[in-house]
Amino acid sequence: MSAIFERLAVPNPGLLADELVGEIIKAVENGKKSGCVLGNSGGIDSALMAAIAIRALGKERVRLFFLPERDTNKQSQEDARLVAEKLGMPMQEVKITPILRKVGVYRLEPPAFLIPRSVRERHVLAMQEELRGQDGSVHLKMQHGGDIDSQRHLAFSNAKNRVRMTVLYKHAELTNSLVLGTCNRSEKMTGLFVKHGDGACDLAPIDHLYKTQVFELARHMGVPSEIVEKKPTGDLIPGITDEGVLGIKYAQLDIALAGLELGCSDEEIVAAGVTQSELDYTKALVEASEFTRHCP
Amino acid sequence: MSAIFERLAVPNPGLLADELVGEIIKAVENGKKSGCVLGNSGGIDSALMAAIAIRALGKERVRLFFLPERDTNKQSQEDARLVAEKLGMPMQEVKITPILRKVGVYRLEPPAFLIPRSVRERHVLAMQEELRGQDGSVHLKMQHGGDIDSQRHLAFSNAKNRVRMTVLYKHAELTNSLVLGTCNRSEKMTGLFVKHGDGACDLAPIDHLYKTQVFELARHMGVPSEIVEKKPTGDLIPGITDEGVLGIKYAQLDIALAGLELGCSDEEIVAAGVTQSELDYTKALVEASEFTRHCP
Repeated sequence: MSAIFERLAVPNPGLLADELVGEIIKAVENGKKSGCVLGNSGGIDSALMAAIAIRALGKERVRLFFLPERDTNKQSQEDARLVAEKLGMPMQEVKITPILRKVGVYRLEPPAFLIPRSVRERHVLAMQEELRGQDGSVHLKMQHGGDIDSQRHLAFSNAKNRVRMTVLYKHAELTNSLVLGTCNRSEKMTGLFVKHGDGACDLAPIDHLYKTQVFELARHMGVPSEIVEKKPTGDLIPGITDEGVLGIKYAQLDIALAGLELGCSDEEIVAAGVTQSELDYTKALVEASEFTRHCP
Repeated sequence: MSAIFERLAVPNPGLLADELVGEIIKAVENGKKSGCVLGNSGGIDSALMAAIAIRALGKERVRLFFLPERDTNKQSQEDARLVAEKLGMPMQEVKITPILRKVGVYRLEPPAFLIPRSVRERHVLAMQEELRGQDGSVHLKMQHGGDIDSQRHLAFSNAKNRVRMTVLYKHAELTNSLVLGTCNRSEKMTGLFVKHGDGACDLAPIDHLYKTQVFELARHMGVPSEIVEKKPTGDLIPGITDEGVLGIKYAQLDIALAGLELGCSDEEIVAAGVTQSELDYTKALVEASEFTRHCP
């Protein structure tokens, strides 16, 4: 088996879960915290994190928040509720739309009520296709910046996650809890997170796991199959999915990322199952997101 | 001269300023940014940063924001305007009170309009004195957490800076600019900053300078004497000053911090001009703020 597949394998998910559980317990003890708080988006990363946190601290010391806004998909709400229900946990729902309105976020994009969601989604999909035809992606374009549209999209979607972080921290600090981050390594390496937004937390137990490893661990931890099997999305702009915005499938991305992490040659990485253009594109993503990762 | 005073000296402020200027130019070029954005609080750190940024990029590529809220001192506003005026710069003023209201921040503390500012300030001063009598401080108490009042104060004041960060980033991202941080080393080492708030930025040029070095460099850069000479304050809670909330003067704090950084013995640090109890207290502050500094 190549080193790349070894790096991506999860030979013992039970042991891995135990390690993450231990990390949370230690952080809560060292920080003299009463427990932890996390945002439950309805996605797989936060569902996994919630399951791990509960195993670490017990239900009473974990609090789940769902923080929807004007553009949040109804499906995300149903999924977040499903996750909480399956875990047997209460979940606090706090609408952040009024905050975002005051921040001026919605003035950056046309009012949603005039344009049907289906039309907005089709527009996003068309944009994704157009950029993919140029060996690029929405995400790479936004990381590079430099044109007014990308900059507006970036400001629009990033402010949403920064407000979420602010609200989560308010609740965490009021109860002397820590904020658990839910970013994974694939997101971190490609900049598919919001600097000082969902990337901002006190502890990020899964930030060394690639997305494909998150899938495996989530299955092991009993995350509902509806959540494991749906297309991952940041749900910040209607119609957008992670793989659509990235322009590459996680399976391919993770092979390329693990290969680069291990210092493999292009030939070795391509032999593991990605095309040279997928590899070149992944390198471009990692480089373009350096600024997003850099926090002084 | 002892190693501690050598560490704290600024033998050549012109050279130091040039280094910071170079750092900003490089970051803007590497990140392919159009310029930078910073919050001008009316305090010495942001006044210094603004002066350095303008020398690096020119007035056209630097934007100053003053982001007042319900509890912002009128003096801060006058000072921020003075800084901008002396620099010959426009300054955008954005009231963040409506945002903070929607975040629910003001519900955490009694409505300001019922209690005169002077009464609130006296209350804060009395609390500072009481804690100082116990060899502690408001800041140490808040870092430790664990009682409802500290937690509420922390959530109350931290949310203000996180909202400021969110607003600054919105403006920065809309114009492909980077956000300049204004934290100094004394603040960083003692946790006198807001994690994911004013501590969150793209570049923090003065985060290796102790506050006493900031004073020296600010004088060299021509920051108005009114700003250099006033008592530093985060201006998040009425009546609070940095030295009041810290329970120690910056002159003493910086000697203790530099001594600890250099690995000096207690005897050497005390010989440099702090009492053993000031040194012990500084150690407690550094330890208690470890959690605040830790960003995964």
